[in-house]
Amino acid sequence: MQRGYARELYALVKDFPILSPHGHTDPSWFALNEPFENATALFLSPDHYIYRMLYSQGIDLDDVGVGSKAGPSGADPRAAWRIFAKNQHLFRGTPTSMWMGHVFGEIMGFEVQLCEDNADFYYDRIGELLASDAYRPRALFDRFNIELLATTEGPTDTLEHHRTIKDSGWKGRVVTAYRPDPVIDPEHEDFHAKLKMFADLTGEDVYSWKGYLRAHRKQRDVFMQHGATSTDHGHPTAQTANLSTADTKALFKRVTGKHVTPEDAELFRAQMLTEMARMSLDDGLTMQIHPGSYRNHNLKVFEKYGRDKGCDIPLPSNYVHALKPLLDVFGNEKNLTVILFTLDETNYSRELAPLAGHYPILKLGPSWWFHDSPEGMMRFREQVTETAGFYNTVGFNDDTRAFLSIPARHDVARRVDANFLARLVAEHRIDLDDAAAVIKDLTYTLPKAAYKL
Amino acid sequence: MQRGYARELYALVKDFPILSPHGHTDPSWFALNEPFENATALFLSPDHYIYRMLYSQGIDLDDVGVGSKAGPSGADPRAAWRIFAKNQHLFRGTPTSMWMGHVFGEIMGFEVQLCEDNADFYYDRIGELLASDAYRPRALFDRFNIELLATTEGPTDTLEHHRTIKDSGWKGRVVTAYRPDPVIDPEHEDFHAKLKMFADLTGEDVYSWKGYLRAHRKQRDVFMQHGATSTDHGHPTAQTANLSTADTKALFKRVTGKHVTPEDAELFRAQMLTEMARMSLDDGLTMQIHPGSYRNHNLKVFEKYGRDKGCDIPLPSNYVHALKPLLDVFGNEKNLTVILFTLDETNYSRELAPLAGHYPILKLGPSWWFHDSPEGMMRFREQVTETAGFYNTVGFNDDTRAFLSIPARHDVARRVDANFLARLVAEHRIDLDDAAAVIKDLTYTLPKAAYKL
Amino acid sequence: MQRGYARELYALVKDFPILSPHGHTDPSWFALNEPFENATALFLSPDHYIYRMLYSQGIDLDDVGVGSKAGPSGADPRAAWRIFAKNQHLFRGTPTSMWMGHVFGEIMGFEVQLCEDNADFYYDRIGELLASDAYRPRALFDRFNIELLATTEGPTDTLEHHRTIKDSGWKGRVVTAYRPDPVIDPEHEDFHAKLKMFADLTGEDVYSWKGYLRAHRKQRDVFMQHGATSTDHGHPTAQTANLSTADTKALFKRVTGKHVTPEDAELFRAQMLTEMARMSLDDGLTMQIHPGSYRNHNLKVFEKYGRDKGCDIPLPSNYVHALKPLLDVFGNEKNLTVILFTLDETNYSRELAPLAGHYPILKLGPSWWFHDSPEGMMRFREQVTETAGFYNTVGFNDDTRAFLSIPARHDVARRVDANFLARLVAEHRIDLDDAAAVIKDLTYTLPKAAYKL
Repeated sequence: MQRGYARELYALVKDFPILSPHGHTDPSWFALNEPFENATALFLSPDHYIYRMLYSQGIDLDDVGVGSKAGPSGADPRAAWRIFAKNQHLFRGTPTSMWMGHVFGEIMGFEVQLCEDNADFYYDRIGELLASDAYRPRALFDRFNIELLATTEGPTDTLEHHRTIKDSGWKGRVVTAYRPDPVIDPEHEDFHAKLKMFADLTGEDVYSWKGYLRAHRKQRDVFMQHGATSTDHGHPTAQTANLSTADTKALFKRVTGKHVTPEDAELFRAQMLTEMARMSLDDGLTMQIHPGSYRNHNLKVFEKYGRDKGCDIPLPSNYVHALKPLLDVFGNEKNLTVILFTLDETNYSRELAPLAGHYPILKLGPSWWFHDSPEGMMRFREQVTETAGFYNTVGFNDDTRAFLSIPARHDVARRVDANFLARLVAEHRIDLDDAAAVIKDLTYTLPKAAYKL
Repeated sequence: MQRGYARELYALVKDFPILSPHGHTDPSWFALNEPFENATALFLSPDHYIYRMLYSQGIDLDDVGVGSKAGPSGADPRAAWRIFAKNQHLFRGTPTSMWMGHVFGEIMGFEVQLCEDNADFYYDRIGELLASDAYRPRALFDRFNIELLATTEGPTDTLEHHRTIKDSGWKGRVVTAYRPDPVIDPEHEDFHAKLKMFADLTGEDVYSWKGYLRAHRKQRDVFMQHGATSTDHGHPTAQTANLSTADTKALFKRVTGKHVTPEDAELFRAQMLTEMARMSLDDGLTMQIHPGSYRNHNLKVFEKYGRDKGCDIPLPSNYVHALKPLLDVFGNEKNLTVILFTLDETNYSRELAPLAGHYPILKLGPSWWFHDSPEGMMRFREQVTETAGFYNTVGFNDDTRAFLSIPARHDVARRVDANFLARLVAEHRIDLDDAAAVIKDLTYTLPKAAYKL
Repeated sequence: MQRGYARELYALVKDFPILSPHGHTDPSWFALNEPFENATALFLSPDHYIYRMLYSQGIDLDDVGVGSKAGPSGADPRAAWRIFAKNQHLFRGTPTSMWMGHVFGEIMGFEVQLCEDNADFYYDRIGELLASDAYRPRALFDRFNIELLATTEGPTDTLEHHRTIKDSGWKGRVVTAYRPDPVIDPEHEDFHAKLKMFADLTGEDVYSWKGYLRAHRKQRDVFMQHGATSTDHGHPTAQTANLSTADTKALFKRVTGKHVTPEDAELFRAQMLTEMARMSLDDGLTMQIHPGSYRNHNLKVFEKYGRDKGCDIPLPSNYVHALKPLLDVFGNEKNLTVILFTLDETNYSRELAPLAGHYPILKLGPSWWFHDSPEGMMRFREQVTETAGFYNTVGFNDDTRAFLSIPARHDVARRVDANFLARLVAEHRIDLDDAAAVIKDLTYTLPKAAYKL
């Protein structure tokens, strides 16, 4: 019975267009529309879900095509692909196997699973497909029925690819989002270099507090001209602060100086969340807070390969005390939306649902990163819905740089929501009609509203 | 098969009388037995589950009839009701929709769901019903088959309504419970005023440590004369302490003085849990500890509306270190019952079940507040049972001020227990006969024993 | 449909031999092969799962045969057994009831459940069986189809029973494991006495840092000669350290002196995990880290009865910061295996799966102790698999001193894995063929590889 409801609910939204308001695809793909290179370069070397799993079993990153600080990997892409093919068993039960299964089966037409024996067949066939016009980025974008796709750019990005897209006449809606972390986090390894670029790009004296704030406002405005409707903040914690102007100025001076203490760095990031909220109140950008990752935990991998190599590990997070300074000032505003994410699932029922179920500015982003998976999504709904309802959530984010997996990821989310709602119907906790309204809202209405698309 | 077992088990306890050993209904209802006023005053303005959800979506508290420090809300109750009716979708998937559905359908006989279009029809019909004798408090109490209902009163309450009930000849058993927080928490905004009243009421010198303790003993005795079988302690944390008499006296002097540090306040609350346990050992009152809520988190709402306006947010809790001082003294007693609650579900399997599965004095209260819901109750059973068993739990508490929802809440708890047990039967983890014994015990025997009813 | 898959998958591994790479059975049983004494001595007085539950309901430990520091319990074993029989309801829904049900039904042939009325019948019949040759330890070992069983011995154990087994000609493989806690934990009540024995046994100057390390290397070697393939570390936390040699020497001097601070004790244990990893890199022993238990929490029980009396309570654990010092040095090694366990289930998805899904040396041990149960195992799979996959886990550990329950425990694990995999198959998240491969690996291949059996 529950299965029947699930099928019925899923059928309602299966073919809805995709709204992707938060992700990390490369805008140059859509600006230049050049063919993707080969299976390894497209699927393997950029996907940290894949190479972290291979690495956990003793496979070197170089061998699967991951470039290091010394330059690109010297691995033969076909040899790298064979390693991936041979180790498919590692992904059993993981979302990666579902995403890749969908890509290979639905998008590329393979009829047998990838394995050691057919590695070359796969590699060659993928190469042929990628060389065809139907597999160029814009063609896939259209085929995927994407209504809107947001990328994420840093505060010193020139947005040239977004300009190219806009000027190209192509109808695909690819917009940017403002992620100012490199000029907000004094502990970022490029903080000083980025500040310099920030000054050059905006023409502001970013070493004075007022000039620094003006530079942010200017860049937010430029980003909005390239379609941005949101900002994104990937801080180590959700800590916010609300210092006096005098204290903030003194803090700003310290963190832009030579020696920064960890406490000052944390306090400055905290204060800047409040400043960003203040700006959002003026310009209407929706804020996203993505805290709680211990970045680059593996010292040796970081030293050799640099950032973002699958070595980020979640930390326990706290929101109740951390957000209070910001909430004390802006928590009751009706025209501000702050979307919270977490990597610590214990926050769902304990903190996030109660906060979002009360404060007008707060909404909950979907289950994130390690939790972007069937079990993870189901736990999110089970632990959040009873206190926050569905209408303090914002639908699905694919949050991915793996462009071809976008339809698979949205499809998984729609299926999980259908399953969750079907259970509620079967248990007489919601009417089937209401469940139908909810799944449409989760798929389309809620992301559209929360991100002002 | 599992569904069949569930139905069978639920049928066994469906019509059991209701034991409500912990709640927050108003004893004046049963003392005076006057008709409830109207739909908004009965259902909407006192129910923080409802107005916090509305508030989270930008609806003002005034507009739904919530009074502020400046006085009662000026909202037209019918207009407030229309707002509630129009926003029913916010409650989809929440326990509120189940409770209200039960109240409207089972208790009031409505045949269609509340919605914007029938708001006035609902409002008028509810008004008619409330004016009839069958919907007066005592008539409903009898109709609900309530065997016993406990309210909760402060240490300075005169218990006049309980006296009226006792003297009235009405058969309904409505008892009180002793909740001394206002004279135990030095950070309570009325601490000094309440102490003064405590002195007046008991005739004790409550500013001396000995007199203060005597006043508690006296009031506990008065409460017991009005049916109390339990005390209740809503502290910020579960911290306990076991100081020497000299240290306690010095601490008492500091916390009853002008300037109280947060550390002293916490230490005094901690010490008082141990003192209360000592008194319970003498007078037999069961202790309830309800920790872990950050009260009045929303500064602006607190300033305008005061306490208890749906702005309480759970915090991470710890019991293992916190309870040790008390357990070191009284943990092995056979004639003391301490019931623990939590708002942090991570405690269930990690701390609470192992503690209750070992210490003779400890029992686990049901899933509480934000977790008083089908998913929340199921997680409680799933995470607690394997280590603590069923017999270190105490059945269900409705913990509500929403009188008409009491049958619905107990019904949900019975259904969830039936579902959980049915799964165990289907998985050959318990016999059907044993499951039948368990559900009867959970519904009736265990609360009766734990609360000495 | 899911049930059908589950049955099919379970049938594949139902009769696989048992690998038990981590446990606490007594090697003297297999060395001497004497009959077990009686039902109470075999099942009741040594099983903390059982007597902690009885104790939680006010039953004295003496009365169920638990010896104290003053000597053996004076309780009549038959009377103790009657108490256990009478209180079977306490175990409803717990794994104990499943294990004991399996032991009584499958191993001993009882056809009715144990209860108050048949207590004596059970007691007598068990006595008869235990007196027969078929119920001697080696006969049961063979009947249970145990391919390998590891016990756990301290660093000063002479391993005489293991030598006897080896010399006996019996084919059963019973090996030891090296658990050096008593000479590593300066807060262990026997630390100094054990150090002295460690010196005597190894002939090393264990009061010098170099001699102390040499003593460990020697004993590890002796243990390996008695079959050991692993070490085990039951520290209060997972903290590791990587001090300079000079700092370590100074620390070693302090912790072997008269007054040890808690900070030094913690730092020394932390440093020793890194030292043990260094030795494992040389001799190939797999490391197991079992942190997070507050040992002997009940002061009065500890004072009267001593250690390990069912009074251990889990604590919140952290791995991300705690393991970093060790991981910075050895995290990327390909020839080292460190198996992590936890008592804090919040670590599964937040920390342990992400760590094991990245670091080559890390693997996840099965759900442990309070979580060695159907719900606990299912949560482990649900929360771990999507990020770490199946192949960063190591199959099942029974971790028990209850020898007769070993088949039941492995059977429960196989059933839960079959159920979990069946659900994935039913939800099209894994192929049935792949699920079949996985369950065989979980049951046999993975423990064999991780523990180098």
